[in-house]
Amino acid sequence: MGTCINHPDRETPYICMKHQIYLCEDCLECRDPKIYCKHRSACPIWFMGKRKEGWEAEDRQEAAAAAHTVRFLPDGQTVSVPDESTLLEAAQAAEIHVNASCSGKGSCGKCKLVVVAGEVETAPTPLLTDGEKAKGYVLACQSRIFGNVSVQIPEEALERKLKIAGMGQAITDRLKGWVTDIDPLLQEIPLTLAPPTLDDSVSDLDRLNRGLKKHGCDVARLNVGIKVMRQLADVVRRDNWKITVSVIRRKCANEILEVRPGNGQHQSLGLAIDVGTTTIVVYLVDMADGSVLAATAGHNRQADCGDDVINRIVCAEKDGVKKLSRMALATINDLIGEALDSAGVKKEAIRNVVVSGNTTMVHLLLQIEPRYLRRDPYIPTVSDFPILKAVEIGLKANPMAAVFVMPGPASYVGGDIVSGVLYTGFHREDPVTLFIDIGTNGEIVLGNREWLMTAACSAGPAFEGGGIRWGMRAEEGAIEKVTIDPQTLVPDLSMVGDAPPRGICGSGMIDLIAELLKTGIVDRSGQFAEGLDNERIRKLGDEWAYVLTFGERTSMEEDIVFTASDLKNLIYSKGAVYAGFTTLLGHAGMDFSMVDRMIITGGFGQYLNIEKAISIGLLPDIDRSKFAYMGNSSIVGAYMALLSAEYRQEARTICESMTYVDFSSNPRYMDEFTSALFLPHTDLNAFPSVTTAASSAIQ
Amino acid sequence: MGTCINHPDRETPYICMKHQIYLCEDCLECRDPKIYCKHRSACPIWFMGKRKEGWEAEDRQEAAAAAHTVRFLPDGQTVSVPDESTLLEAAQAAEIHVNASCSGKGSCGKCKLVVVAGEVETAPTPLLTDGEKAKGYVLACQSRIFGNVSVQIPEEALERKLKIAGMGQAITDRLKGWVTDIDPLLQEIPLTLAPPTLDDSVSDLDRLNRGLKKHGCDVARLNVGIKVMRQLADVVRRDNWKITVSVIRRKCANEILEVRPGNGQHQSLGLAIDVGTTTIVVYLVDMADGSVLAATAGHNRQADCGDDVINRIVCAEKDGVKKLSRMALATINDLIGEALDSAGVKKEAIRNVVVSGNTTMVHLLLQIEPRYLRRDPYIPTVSDFPILKAVEIGLKANPMAAVFVMPGPASYVGGDIVSGVLYTGFHREDPVTLFIDIGTNGEIVLGNREWLMTAACSAGPAFEGGGIRWGMRAEEGAIEKVTIDPQTLVPDLSMVGDAPPRGICGSGMIDLIAELLKTGIVDRSGQFAEGLDNERIRKLGDEWAYVLTFGERTSMEEDIVFTASDLKNLIYSKGAVYAGFTTLLGHAGMDFSMVDRMIITGGFGQYLNIEKAISIGLLPDIDRSKFAYMGNSSIVGAYMALLSAEYRQEARTICESMTYVDFSSNPRYMDEFTSALFLPHTDLNAFPSVTTAASSAIQ
Repeated sequence: MGTCINHPDRETPYICMKHQIYLCEDCLECRDPKIYCKHRSACPIWFMGKRKEGWEAEDRQEAAAAAHTVRFLPDGQTVSVPDESTLLEAAQAAEIHVNASCSGKGSCGKCKLVVVAGEVETAPTPLLTDGEKAKGYVLACQSRIFGNVSVQIPEEALERKLKIAGMGQAITDRLKGWVTDIDPLLQEIPLTLAPPTLDDSVSDLDRLNRGLKKHGCDVARLNVGIKVMRQLADVVRRDNWKITVSVIRRKCANEILEVRPGNGQHQSLGLAIDVGTTTIVVYLVDMADGSVLAATAGHNRQADCGDDVINRIVCAEKDGVKKLSRMALATINDLIGEALDSAGVKKEAIRNVVVSGNTTMVHLLLQIEPRYLRRDPYIPTVSDFPILKAVEIGLKANPMAAVFVMPGPASYVGGDIVSGVLYTGFHREDPVTLFIDIGTNGEIVLGNREWLMTAACSAGPAFEGGGIRWGMRAEEGAIEKVTIDPQTLVPDLSMVGDAPPRGICGSGMIDLIAELLKTGIVDRSGQFAEGLDNERIRKLGDEWAYVLTFGERTSMEEDIVFTASDLKNLIYSKGAVYAGFTTLLGHAGMDFSMVDRMIITGGFGQYLNIEKAISIGLLPDIDRSKFAYMGNSSIVGAYMALLSAEYRQEARTICESMTYVDFSSNPRYMDEFTSALFLPHTDLNAFPSVTTAASSAIQ
Repeated sequence: MGTCINHPDRETPYICMKHQIYLCEDCLECRDPKIYCKHRSACPIWFMGKRKEGWEAEDRQEAAAAAHTVRFLPDGQTVSVPDESTLLEAAQAAEIHVNASCSGKGSCGKCKLVVVAGEVETAPTPLLTDGEKAKGYVLACQSRIFGNVSVQIPEEALERKLKIAGMGQAITDRLKGWVTDIDPLLQEIPLTLAPPTLDDSVSDLDRLNRGLKKHGCDVARLNVGIKVMRQLADVVRRDNWKITVSVIRRKCANEILEVRPGNGQHQSLGLAIDVGTTTIVVYLVDMADGSVLAATAGHNRQADCGDDVINRIVCAEKDGVKKLSRMALATINDLIGEALDSAGVKKEAIRNVVVSGNTTMVHLLLQIEPRYLRRDPYIPTVSDFPILKAVEIGLKANPMAAVFVMPGPASYVGGDIVSGVLYTGFHREDPVTLFIDIGTNGEIVLGNREWLMTAACSAGPAFEGGGIRWGMRAEEGAIEKVTIDPQTLVPDLSMVGDAPPRGICGSGMIDLIAELLKTGIVDRSGQFAEGLDNERIRKLGDEWAYVLTFGERTSMEEDIVFTASDLKNLIYSKGAVYAGFTTLLGHAGMDFSMVDRMIITGGFGQYLNIEKAISIGLLPDIDRSKFAYMGNSSIVGAYMALLSAEYRQEARTICESMTYVDFSSNPRYMDEFTSALFLPHTDLNAFPSVTTAASSAIQ
């Protein structure tokens, strides 16, 4: 017996012998492909409408007869699939991750494979070049199999796979040993039970409880669900009373989530997931030693519904929260798939998950009504989330995997910030720290081991590239450093990965504005100097712009420019952040001189020029040695909570001890914001060390 | 948002405005009627394939347009249904219970209605007499609507309805006040929360927890599921922060099962269900005062798979436990439907359920693998069941209703026996009591407040009519008393309900055997006397039989007889029971003289002649004042547990304190059994007061 892949609440004996997937009777009878969305991608046999093939009641253990063999190089995995399957279906059946972001519609052109032996029938596509076609490249989703074939996974896909694993190795080098006392949420307890006799005829469940008690579990506090009971009799007997029990602690009671046959060693994996508004990051972690097996990141597909959390909520109100949840899940599950594939492991081994994200992202992912988050008085439905199961959310993991969601204190200060604080650790120390996460929003935490205050300023997504004509994340080809020759006004650019420029990321924009100001191209109020006669300064339609690169040097063959509107957006963003600092400090009766340390985290990639950030008034003009830039802190906090019960409890404590200050109706914040809409600020006394090259005075 | 009726794990905004039933997107898209089994019976609109009609996303609150109105007399309920609906579908839509045991196939002929205004198109059927047709009788499932109609529920159906309610009243008269301190499993807590403000902006869940804490709940021990979280934001705001919270205690932690808008008075109902192998009994109880609103009973449809638990298990091994579960559920849900209809209440108000049944019945109902129950060493999967939800089992009740399953100590001594002990209460008292439940099996409990021993003897279903040619339950028309004129050998019969005889029930068989023995028609070894020349004594094929009534006097126009095989079966059954007594007493180092009280429960109906039961050797020959016959004790124990936390705990204590003695491989039991295969026994010294009229000596 197993759980129907479409109906997690149903037990069924019907199993696909090849893929070990169960379907209930209703599902077996139903021919509507819509019902099979989940299953279809896993089992091409069913997808092809040949239901009898490979599907058998479990007690008739006949191997499925399948028509053709597909061999995947370089590793040589093989899989048998019926006639007319596509190569994409074959890859999915073999659990080989092939990028297919259009889900097999043939429109994204990413599922490239090279046919090296045998033949496939492939539909014509404009998404392959003639050169690729000559080399045997096909789109996996558009190629059907009529005989045995061998296909090669292209170099570039293998490179990505290596990169994901390599990224994991790099993170392991950085984080391993960070958590010494590994204590996962889901405990796995191996047991050997004494078989029953006429003289010892307690029920199977009582026998299991007896075994757990001997192992030190408090069985008076153990709950068990009906699914476990239904399978229990068979499971305990399958490997002669040797079993492994998954137990999870929820409040004071524990629950037996799963019992499976055998009590030998097995791999146990975990996921740390950072669900950002713009970017989602996944770490696949070996729970035995905390090493990161793979790390991968991708754009949150919710971006189709707008750049910031407010637009996402509006979209959820219009189209239903389920749609937004599915978009985020699609991104997350794709990233998990990539990570599993790179590490060569199966999703069933994933039994622990930690999700970190801002309050909106988490509400949307869990399909919790988000509309009140954006309405006065801005109330989240849940701050401290109960432990969930992967199946309840839809995560690609063992259905019974335990999911810890980072708690978040307010609608606009979420679990990602708690996670960041957990990682940076200043809540355990004496120095007063000002913490800022500059992502799609700007969240600030002020305090030390004795107190924590937090607030959110609506910085907008400009620093992550949103609303900026050539804005982008800190990915390959993003301009991340800029200097401008004061004489020729020609810029010197550095790109992420030394690639040709494709756009400009947050750190590049900070550099650029600082340089524009220094060279006098813009003045302190953000106006372009109109008298400059230089090919770099142009008027595009109504507005002035600075040309970073001319078309011939970019991969897009278009000029990359930075316009007056872009500048205005960024001044608003940096003003919102700076006003956040001063308002929160004022609320605490403090000023910058009383701040011992300043931690900046967020999506700036590897690089952030503190000096230039100060010169444009994003960061305060204080002792440079007080600054620390710590990159993406949310994912590291999630990693820590994944491995340690102590850190999970600490996250809860951080969340509870934060006092949230609401800026939305705070007149002081509005004043501070208005004052900050200059470069660096209206009050130059606050920026004594800034030597401005801007020639114009305040107008 | 609500829960898809087919997929309890899915939230959906799509609701049938008329029936308040939710379907998820996948279900709305799927046209396979198999998927709709559950839904179809509730919503004829969908059944007719007109999916757009009446189905709307909840936020488009447009009332469904429906074609015709059906009015049900005498109460005048009306319902709108689309063109071509059947009257049965209309009744189901109006939540009016119409007996339809063939599920609308037109083969049982029970869903009779009388059309009094308007016209229907009805298929020809042989199941209505010409007289009925002339009066306007139709079969509801075979009659389609093409305009407005009024139909009358026939007198006989109304009578049954009254009878069910009347039965409830009779039970109320007997049991009311039995439980004084009503304390349901599911607590319903009405709360008025302070609306959030900018200064008090904790999450909705924290606000709810704060309210519960004020109410005295230990929120540190409160769990909450994802479904409650998903609906919470809307629910708390719908009636301006007035809510009712359903909380259930499981082990040391509590769980919030449901939060709903409004905190006013509401009806709360409970169900006590006795799942017998042969008969299922349902009490519908008002949880406010413990009154029984309706009581109804019916044959367990699992009977199609055999009379006794062994055959049911064999059937489950062959066809899957799900099939057996569905059969029992169909019976139970039909009985619940009848009870709800008689009481004029809705299933949503049912929030507490107690199920009592033998170990096999409970395993089958919950779809727990039963095969090890019948295999040495006879191990149940679960003895002490965790609290379940109605939706997990499939009971017709509020999906979140809490279900307490009576614990049962062994494979052949189940929760029904614990329930019986709870009711009779001898486990709280000093006198040593011998308790026997004679149903499809015979379970014995011996002990007092200090100790309890229990055992099962495979008495077989003979006393419930199984394996007996004219055997039947103690229903209308069952012969329940018999005396035989010693001269003429003509019997004097009493039937249940004074109806014409249809068969013979357990108490009738006991009477009959005593009389056959007394009049010398059979001897002590169970042989028919062959020399008697009387029309009542006949040879049927190979074997002798006694004619209870001649065909002309029965409703079936056939002779009702009692054959030598019937007698043999009954001697085996009574011998098994008596051997059970002596073996268990011997195991405890006791004999009958040390028994202070003897309680008999089981399916004998109103009547059991103790004297005659002793004279055939079913019961021991001890002081008659020690005997008490207490009818169906399992249902009363279930009723008590439904109302009282103390009794639920007591049931667990009874189960734990019982020492189970296995007879299956006990040589002493076999000896005692062999000795008991005479009337009354081989050892006449054990029956000093029995004056036997049997003329023959032991052969």
